Amino acid sequence: MRKQLLDLREAMHKNGVSMYLVVTDDYHASEYTGNYFKCRANLTGFTGSAGSSIVTEDWAGLWTDGRYFLQAEAQLKDSGFELCRMGEPGVPTIEEYISSHLKAGDVLGFDGRTISARNYQKYVAIAERTGASIVSSLDLAGDIWENRPPMSAEPVFELGVELTGKSRTEKLKEIRDELLKEEADILLLSSLADINWLLNIRGGDVACTPVVLSYAMISQQEAYLFINPSVLSPEIRAHLEADHVEIRPYHSIFEAVASIQPGKSVLLNPALVNSAIVSVIPETVRIKEGPNPTELPKAVKNSTEVSNFRIAHVKDGVAVTKFMYWLKHNVGKIPMDEISCASKLESYRREQEHYVEPSFEPIMAYGPHGAIVHYKATPDSNAAIEPRSFFLCDTGGHYLEGTTDITRTFAMGPLTEEEKRCYTLVLKGHLQLGSAHFRYGVTGSYLDYAARKPLWDAGMDYNHGTGHGVGYLMSVHEGPQAFRTKELPNARPAVLQPGMITSDEPGIYLEGKFGVRLENLTVVCESETGAFGRFLHLEYLTMVPWDLDAVVPEMLTDEEKKYLNQYHKQVRETISPYLNPDEKAWLIHATRNI
Amino acid sequence: MRKQLLDLREAMHKNGVSMYLVVTDDYHASEYTGNYFKCRANLTGFTGSAGSSIVTEDWAGLWTDGRYFLQAEAQLKDSGFELCRMGEPGVPTIEEYISSHLKAGDVLGFDGRTISARNYQKYVAIAERTGASIVSSLDLAGDIWENRPPMSAEPVFELGVELTGKSRTEKLKEIRDELLKEEADILLLSSLADINWLLNIRGGDVACTPVVLSYAMISQQEAYLFINPSVLSPEIRAHLEADHVEIRPYHSIFEAVASIQPGKSVLLNPALVNSAIVSVIPETVRIKEGPNPTELPKAVKNSTEVSNFRIAHVKDGVAVTKFMYWLKHNVGKIPMDEISCASKLESYRREQEHYVEPSFEPIMAYGPHGAIVHYKATPDSNAAIEPRSFFLCDTGGHYLEGTTDITRTFAMGPLTEEEKRCYTLVLKGHLQLGSAHFRYGVTGSYLDYAARKPLWDAGMDYNHGTGHGVGYLMSVHEGPQAFRTKELPNARPAVLQPGMITSDEPGIYLEGKFGVRLENLTVVCESETGAFGRFLHLEYLTMVPWDLDAVVPEMLTDEEKKYLNQYHKQVRETISPYLNPDEKAWLIHATRNI
Repeated sequence: MRKQLLDLREAMHKNGVSMYLVVTDDYHASEYTGNYFKCRANLTGFTGSAGSSIVTEDWAGLWTDGRYFLQAEAQLKDSGFELCRMGEPGVPTIEEYISSHLKAGDVLGFDGRTISARNYQKYVAIAERTGASIVSSLDLAGDIWENRPPMSAEPVFELGVELTGKSRTEKLKEIRDELLKEEADILLLSSLADINWLLNIRGGDVACTPVVLSYAMISQQEAYLFINPSVLSPEIRAHLEADHVEIRPYHSIFEAVASIQPGKSVLLNPALVNSAIVSVIPETVRIKEGPNPTELPKAVKNSTEVSNFRIAHVKDGVAVTKFMYWLKHNVGKIPMDEISCASKLESYRREQEHYVEPSFEPIMAYGPHGAIVHYKATPDSNAAIEPRSFFLCDTGGHYLEGTTDITRTFAMGPLTEEEKRCYTLVLKGHLQLGSAHFRYGVTGSYLDYAARKPLWDAGMDYNHGTGHGVGYLMSVHEGPQAFRTKELPNARPAVLQPGMITSDEPGIYLEGKFGVRLENLTVVCESETGAFGRFLHLEYLTMVPWDLDAVVPEMLTDEEKKYLNQYHKQVRETISPYLNPDEKAWLIHATRNI
Repeated sequence: MRKQLLDLREAMHKNGVSMYLVVTDDYHASEYTGNYFKCRANLTGFTGSAGSSIVTEDWAGLWTDGRYFLQAEAQLKDSGFELCRMGEPGVPTIEEYISSHLKAGDVLGFDGRTISARNYQKYVAIAERTGASIVSSLDLAGDIWENRPPMSAEPVFELGVELTGKSRTEKLKEIRDELLKEEADILLLSSLADINWLLNIRGGDVACTPVVLSYAMISQQEAYLFINPSVLSPEIRAHLEADHVEIRPYHSIFEAVASIQPGKSVLLNPALVNSAIVSVIPETVRIKEGPNPTELPKAVKNSTEVSNFRIAHVKDGVAVTKFMYWLKHNVGKIPMDEISCASKLESYRREQEHYVEPSFEPIMAYGPHGAIVHYKATPDSNAAIEPRSFFLCDTGGHYLEGTTDITRTFAMGPLTEEEKRCYTLVLKGHLQLGSAHFRYGVTGSYLDYAARKPLWDAGMDYNHGTGHGVGYLMSVHEGPQAFRTKELPNARPAVLQPGMITSDEPGIYLEGKFGVRLENLTVVCESETGAFGRFLHLEYLTMVPWDLDAVVPEMLTDEEKKYLNQYHKQVRETISPYLNPDEKAWLIHATRNI
């Protein structure tokens, strides 16, 4: 049994807690978290990116999803934690478990800073029903963590108007106008993307997401940024203060919220603000729940941001195209494997000016590994790349000019008919969505069918969304828009607006055989407005060839061929100037008309 | 000024009412209404199918939508009613009007039986805000109606299990099981389709909708049908009572609801139940709002119903195919116009066994009239059919075996290139949706893009839904499923289920020129279930040729041609046996392969 589990039980006993919940979240509902927040990993030994654990006096369990069953099984061995396989028949959800095991008089404990206000309400409802009580002010899993790393405090950098297209003063003005419309006095922001976007700052506190840990409160007269003061250079601090942004210590958000004047109204998104903050809002203050008013202007990139994204994608296109050339010319000649190829691709990205870091952990999946949607190569799983079958590479980078996310599935040598057929079906879906010309007013879900139709016609499908929004030098997954089969629950359906950047990434996964996923980023652009209304279309940002070695031309319609050839012409003209003569000669062939 | 307006003002004065609202609805939120309920038409003189009026001491107005602006303008002349053009800039909605004109101390009056519980809440909120009060128990517009026709009391007929596929006992059992799941004691039904479906009865009280006026209350032990006793034959009454359905007088629903026992819970749909009923529910009774549990089983036709629908569509296909033959062989030779053609088509339908009545008022629209989506030929507008351009015919019939709704746009002679191009674009959209093969779990909105894509690619669109559900020998418009660009607000998105019958009717409308709409009914059918999940597809029920004289074959893809030819083969084989030799010879040519 893990020492951490024994220590936690002791701490629970001391504090009168009967059941303790440890989740993966930081205090800001971030998708990825800094090392300081990895309490669940330290407690259980399971290092996957998703999972929650429950500890009682005589039982301990860890919930995670299908991606991680094998890894969790190995890592939890002899830990004292039972693996609860989410989604498997007979396995209760974590809420169902709590609901059926919490008894009258019991105390459910957790660190309220890691639980959203929305989820907190669910636990309150369970506690009320069972007659138990809740203690949300204890970070027991943090307390028992020996040698817990300090909270990240990387220096902040500013983005100028040449990158953001809008000064923080302009953004603050717009958000304040929205607050007036919403009839709210104060906006309470705790999601890092919203704060970093609004104030045109970035940091280095979260893996793969260059943002700074912070909270913010905005009213018509005031703007407070709660942040570790040591991460601000005197210059940046002066800039913020010149724009009337007042700096306060990170943890003092609680005192600030607790002292909101009676009668004021606070707008917040209960899925993003943590319950510890919401619990200190005085009862005399009216809480107005809704999406953050920053959400939509953050998602709708302005013309400067779109131009920058195009620049970032030229750089990224050069890196990935060079990698594609290198791969196809060296496979079977020199040793290469999933992990070494990730380094190779990363080295091409690092050669590009203004490259910051990967925008997510790369998925480099050879052969059967490609069928595992969220595969991550480890020293144990690391496969050699051989001169046959598919190599699925889903990677991305942050540049000062924007964020990329690209999946290419490369033919590493001769392919089977089935491999080619699957590649071409996915490519058809990808092109059908990418070439959509649509009436203003529809959501991404409305267009999702375009990507799936060729696969559905063949009786195939993929069990993931077709596309997600992408942030500007922050989270690579950003709302509110998406290409999905269903609108997200608890969200206002997001009408597609010019400037929204979304991935287009259908796939096919044959377990034990191979996977194909083909992903470009797209931007919504204005088309014509006429007698029949206003029309929009998508344009590709990503500039890397598709692998014609994997395409069955006869399976493409004339329109699909035309669209593919047009794209390849654009890739050739855009990327060629940055290649050496050998690469250039190859690219001309790789992007030939079919 | 109309006498009715003066009489209403006098009645308002006597009853202390400052503002009186008269709507088009009957007591059951029916789409069409019987003559007894046409108070708004009697009051204002405007006979259109949609509109509401407000009368105050010194002003009177009628709200209607764009379909009726011309008609309302003519009919309201010298009436004392001002026409309020809904949707035009600067025209307040009726709620906005009430909200801005109702003053403290005013009394807003209406007949609560004609206002849904949901809308009633909106008026209550306005009254609370303005300090006015509401009187909802006065049918003043009915009281001043001299020679008001009596409430319809047409005889009820029963549908046997050979038509419905399920006895009323089975249906009652299923609904009672749903009530248990919903933890509700009593189901209160006031929408006629739900009651008539549940009890396997029909009537003749509503135009184009063969249902009987009634209310119902269902609990685990009891089932009450509130109905005019004179419409029940002794035999049908005995059948109902044998199935433990107790008959009560129509108007006694109010006493029954008022005497629901304390502590009981009532499930009702506030958009369908009128506010007068809801207002007498005792405060000690818990109201549970939700969709009627009858809604989904009514929409998902069982295998008997689907088989019957296919039979109805053979009959209807014979009638419309004969009409098509007659039209195309007689145009330019004998006089014909929109109204006479409607009679001709109706005469073909009447020749079919078990034909009941039209399922809606026919839209017979020649040339430019085709561009008016809800056109209705009147003696004034009635256009002669000439041997050129398009004749758009949107009609349908009720048969004992089911309900049809079909739109054909016929080439009456030589067409312009533009006419042919538009026809073919609409046909492409129609075929694309009709041939959809899709994963179980999506709604109709998810597939809507299939129908619009060919038009959108050409920068065209139509401003109406692509398809609506269809009732079985009741309302031709039925929820919950639909093909639309957006999910309906206030409704749970309806996943497409095998047995759901929905129209597929894209169009193009060029004002002043012509309109094209092409409509078949479709039924959702099971396809294969395999490694990638469960798949469904659509099958056409409607069996009438498309007009190949209007098709540009080169604009169709190979798949579209194949699908069209398959359909035409099916039409030919299905309909030929019922045609005379001349018609048959023509049909073989009309359904030739292209």
